[in-house]
Amino acid sequence: MSDNTAKLNERLAEWLPREETQAERLREAMNYSFTAGGKRLRPLLMAMTYEAFGGEGPEIEPFMAAIEMIHTYSLVHDDLPCMDNDTLRRGKPTTWNVYGEDFGVLAGDGLLTYAFETAAKAFEVTGDPARTGRAMSILARKAGLYGMCGGQALDVLLTGSAPSADQLDFIYRNKTGALLEASMMIGAVLAGADGEALENVEKAAAAIGYAFQIEDDILDITADEAELGKNVGSDEKNAKTTFVTLYGMEAAQKEVRRLTEEALARIDAFPMPAPSLKELVAGLCSRRK
Amino acid sequence: MSDNTAKLNERLAEWLPREETQAERLREAMNYSFTAGGKRLRPLLMAMTYEAFGGEGPEIEPFMAAIEMIHTYSLVHDDLPCMDNDTLRRGKPTTWNVYGEDFGVLAGDGLLTYAFETAAKAFEVTGDPARTGRAMSILARKAGLYGMCGGQALDVLLTGSAPSADQLDFIYRNKTGALLEASMMIGAVLAGADGEALENVEKAAAAIGYAFQIEDDILDITADEAELGKNVGSDEKNAKTTFVTLYGMEAAQKEVRRLTEEALARIDAFPMPAPSLKELVAGLCSRRK
Repeated sequence: MSDNTAKLNERLAEWLPREETQAERLREAMNYSFTAGGKRLRPLLMAMTYEAFGGEGPEIEPFMAAIEMIHTYSLVHDDLPCMDNDTLRRGKPTTWNVYGEDFGVLAGDGLLTYAFETAAKAFEVTGDPARTGRAMSILARKAGLYGMCGGQALDVLLTGSAPSADQLDFIYRNKTGALLEASMMIGAVLAGADGEALENVEKAAAAIGYAFQIEDDILDITADEAELGKNVGSDEKNAKTTFVTLYGMEAAQKEVRRLTEEALARIDAFPMPAPSLKELVAGLCSRRK
Repeated sequence: MSDNTAKLNERLAEWLPREETQAERLREAMNYSFTAGGKRLRPLLMAMTYEAFGGEGPEIEPFMAAIEMIHTYSLVHDDLPCMDNDTLRRGKPTTWNVYGEDFGVLAGDGLLTYAFETAAKAFEVTGDPARTGRAMSILARKAGLYGMCGGQALDVLLTGSAPSADQLDFIYRNKTGALLEASMMIGAVLAGADGEALENVEKAAAAIGYAFQIEDDILDITADEAELGKNVGSDEKNAKTTFVTLYGMEAAQKEVRRLTEEALARIDAFPMPAPSLKELVAGLCSRRK
């Protein structure tokens, strides 16, 4: 883990529920899920976009924590026995595997709700509550039926069968893409962006999300378990259709490069230079050894 | 169903997700859960409290729909095989029973997220976004770890064992009470209440929630399945500790009366007379034949 990730982890962890409760096991399961590692990609993208649009207020941080909580809840529920039935995630036992299936459901519910509770703390520090309201709206929209949750639903529905190219496209844009779009859009909106500038941010994030998902498919085939910290070959095991199985490895790698270039060009159109953001994006999309 | 409930149902249903999506089965499962009936108690309490505090703007309605979505999601997840494993709810097959266990999880997630998306629509019509932000904050807090979800967690944890009086109290105050508190507090806050007046609202709702939960325990013993529209005797089946098993039927009935009187007295302290609200509360707490 880099120093920067460690520092970011500390900042994010400060937003976790700290007050003890008689439902202590739930608090524990939520915090376990959240602190089990991860690249913190979404908060990073959010913070860097915020900066690239000149943002410098305190209202960004609760949203950074919130988006990571939503990402975490989605993993916790995806891992459930009735979903992907995964026992290992980021090199650690999955939440349901430690706390039981019922608390796997509850920890996800708790994190999702706490994400909105945390984001709502931005109202206590913002100078522009209408703008904070717009960010809240984006957060919920992109996480829900017309975003991540919808993508996950179609993915679950088609597991074991062969999705069409169009369906796979929908899954990638929503299951992975939507939350990355939310991350960068919230950063931009909280810094005052709207209109075409905001659309450009959304498209940059969509390209990053798509490239990231294809890269994941590539890694599922080429990486080994220790490197990746999760079960690999699971797509093959589940006879899952991915961008790689649909278009082949070469086309997949080419598409990752194309999308990365698109994203970098769009980031160049942000109001301020964003070398760290560009470096992050370039790194994300070439994770193979 | 009364004419008023039918009218309210129509108004609430307008807030459901109407836009078609490739994840159509998820939208269907969400809408199925939401429209499977119910007394719409929480939106009613919210609207009546809003009126009793002089509120008359459009920002209340998205919150009314949102609180009912959160209530619905909690039922959908409670019914899951890994939780209460219920097959029947409000006289209809439970969501997981119709759509499968995976879509039971997803429909709950979708509804919870859509609740916040819906509530956030209040920002588009409010004249006071800071106030709307406070309502959002209450919604999330009372639904989460330090509210409903926490109560549910302790309830799940103690199923099959004997909770102490203190633990039962925590479960009742949170699993049932917290969302009723949110309903009435949001109504009051959106109409401009704060400070002691808001505390009085919270305590009125807490009394109603507690009485309502004890009444449910009583009905689980005295009602039959057709009347209640759900499995009865389930507490006994699960050897569950309730207020009735802990303190006896007579004490339970007495406590319901005491709490109802407290709630009615607190409602008398609202700025405007609220005869419909008082009638609703009195009716809620004497549902046995």
